[in-house]
Amino acid sequence: MAEQIFSYQQLYQFTQKIFLAIGCSERDALTATKVLLSADARGIDSHGVARLSGYVRLWEAKRIHSNPNIKIIHETLSTATIDGDAGLGLVVAPYAMQIAINKAKNVGTGWVSVGNSNHFGIAGYHAMMTLEHDMIGIAMTNASALVAPTFSVEKMLGTNPIAVAIPALQQPPFIADFATTTAANGKLEILQRKNADAPLGWVQDENGNASIDANILKKRGSLLPLGSDREHGSHKGYALGSIVDIFSAVLSGGSYGPWAPPFPAYIPMPENMPGKGLGHFFGAMRIDAFRPAQEFKQHMDNWIERFRKAKPAKGFDKVLIPGDPEREMEEKRMKNGIPIIQSVIDDLKLTGEKVGVKW
Amino acid sequence: MAEQIFSYQQLYQFTQKIFLAIGCSERDALTATKVLLSADARGIDSHGVARLSGYVRLWEAKRIHSNPNIKIIHETLSTATIDGDAGLGLVVAPYAMQIAINKAKNVGTGWVSVGNSNHFGIAGYHAMMTLEHDMIGIAMTNASALVAPTFSVEKMLGTNPIAVAIPALQQPPFIADFATTTAANGKLEILQRKNADAPLGWVQDENGNASIDANILKKRGSLLPLGSDREHGSHKGYALGSIVDIFSAVLSGGSYGPWAPPFPAYIPMPENMPGKGLGHFFGAMRIDAFRPAQEFKQHMDNWIERFRKAKPAKGFDKVLIPGDPEREMEEKRMKNGIPIIQSVIDDLKLTGEKVGVKW
Repeated sequence: MAEQIFSYQQLYQFTQKIFLAIGCSERDALTATKVLLSADARGIDSHGVARLSGYVRLWEAKRIHSNPNIKIIHETLSTATIDGDAGLGLVVAPYAMQIAINKAKNVGTGWVSVGNSNHFGIAGYHAMMTLEHDMIGIAMTNASALVAPTFSVEKMLGTNPIAVAIPALQQPPFIADFATTTAANGKLEILQRKNADAPLGWVQDENGNASIDANILKKRGSLLPLGSDREHGSHKGYALGSIVDIFSAVLSGGSYGPWAPPFPAYIPMPENMPGKGLGHFFGAMRIDAFRPAQEFKQHMDNWIERFRKAKPAKGFDKVLIPGDPEREMEEKRMKNGIPIIQSVIDDLKLTGEKVGVKW
Repeated sequence: MAEQIFSYQQLYQFTQKIFLAIGCSERDALTATKVLLSADARGIDSHGVARLSGYVRLWEAKRIHSNPNIKIIHETLSTATIDGDAGLGLVVAPYAMQIAINKAKNVGTGWVSVGNSNHFGIAGYHAMMTLEHDMIGIAMTNASALVAPTFSVEKMLGTNPIAVAIPALQQPPFIADFATTTAANGKLEILQRKNADAPLGWVQDENGNASIDANILKKRGSLLPLGSDREHGSHKGYALGSIVDIFSAVLSGGSYGPWAPPFPAYIPMPENMPGKGLGHFFGAMRIDAFRPAQEFKQHMDNWIERFRKAKPAKGFDKVLIPGDPEREMEEKRMKNGIPIIQSVIDDLKLTGEKVGVKW
């Protein structure tokens, strides 16, 4: 597939101009750009600039407000519920996580459920906001339904990712960030572009039969929860995706389960939505609300070093710590640039023309 | 396999006498019995009376204190860290969850990390303690290492379960309670007793090759994280198990990863333990710290009813909600009695004789 290499700065300037052009404030455009590009930098290409045109189309369809009035609608000392006023999730989410951090400073932990929002980029970005404060960060979001529960052929849940960021001392932080499905939808899209088959256990057809067709979602098929099938624990992946849905959207007043709003603007909104927009959930836990931060971080170094030294299986170099691959990718791409495939470049050019920003 | 049926009351009286005989207070014996038997009632036979002899052997080995001095060693308005003083996890865990509930009453949520503890029975019991308070409950624990991380052949993590209990209104609550492995160790033990093979994807041999040998753990093999292999997301199961380990034991000062103490008393303790005992982690979130409880529970009813009606795959009756199988089992067993296999009965008799309690 044809691709070109761009520097982070090049992509940054273009993306920021797009967000300004659709009416974001300087500050929001900066935040949205940083969040969006953290996906490209970390190698999660499906969640970065490749989605920019989608956000703009949602703005055109008036499903995204570029100047939202984000409000706390309910709170206690350790919690808040936020109405995102249909803002960019890329802006609403860091706002909400900052509130969780502030509450954690005061009472040890902070927990924020957000409704009436939109896609928030990669969950890992938001979880990692806590690290500089010596806090553990948790971020999750629901998403439009692509996943069939165990024993079902109906798409009821999104890929509903969970991210957890945990600081260490000398070692880089532990950063888990994963869809609660066997494979993220982005991985399936890569196979579609390559015209390749999917491994057994990623998707099923409309009757619930195992399938290797990477295009099966367009044929009434569905993604499978982490675990793939009942015998291999798919009921656990289904439970995890459900927990994310409930914490993010039922707690906040967002729209949950099969009623979660779709990302593509051309797909009509579900009927009889029980809430507004997508939902997110954030947590921040101050380390020293449990034990001295220095002590904890020394033990995290010990944990990480011991797991890195775990005996590898034949044919494998070493055991990885969650976050290792993305961090290595980020170092590489910040130095050598970020490859963007031609179809995304074309899409970005068109998006720029639409709102008067030159590529 | 030969088995006999006992009423809950019969098992209750015997178990309570055992706990009294090893020196538990009246109150602790009652708590420990309730927690332990909730596993038998709910059909998780590996975690119920089948483990009673193991607890007694740990007490004989002086690894369990029957009269522990459980202490809060650190706290904030929304958090606490507890030293379980090597008490029965069956007693330490409900104590800790009660503190989480009290903190949630005050500031919206409560989060408690526990070290220097022992096995706490089923995670679901503790998570469910929050339900009567209109709170969401979260419970997790680390355990002795049986699981190899992705790309490894070394056992580094326990089966590290997570339980989440969420109240509804007319519908029964949503209760997820699952090991972060493809299959819980108890499932493997059932296959061992039947002399049956394990499905591919549950375990691997000492070289990291796929195996169907249900006895492979005794041959240096290991359990696999949820997802089974890298292609099917085992790095996500590995991350989940790691998060449980860190929240439970690194935050609290417990012993983590490969250093988690073993359940069988005849296995020597690991060398150079970085902390004391097993660790647990509990959370309680008041629903009305986010939105009115009645409103939330109505939406949970809607969520549950919609998921129950999801179109089933061919060959399946209906879609289940997490907690359905265990609740149905509990109703059945409280009415018809609890089957106990002969080897467990023999074991219980011997345990009784040892401490002067008649079977």
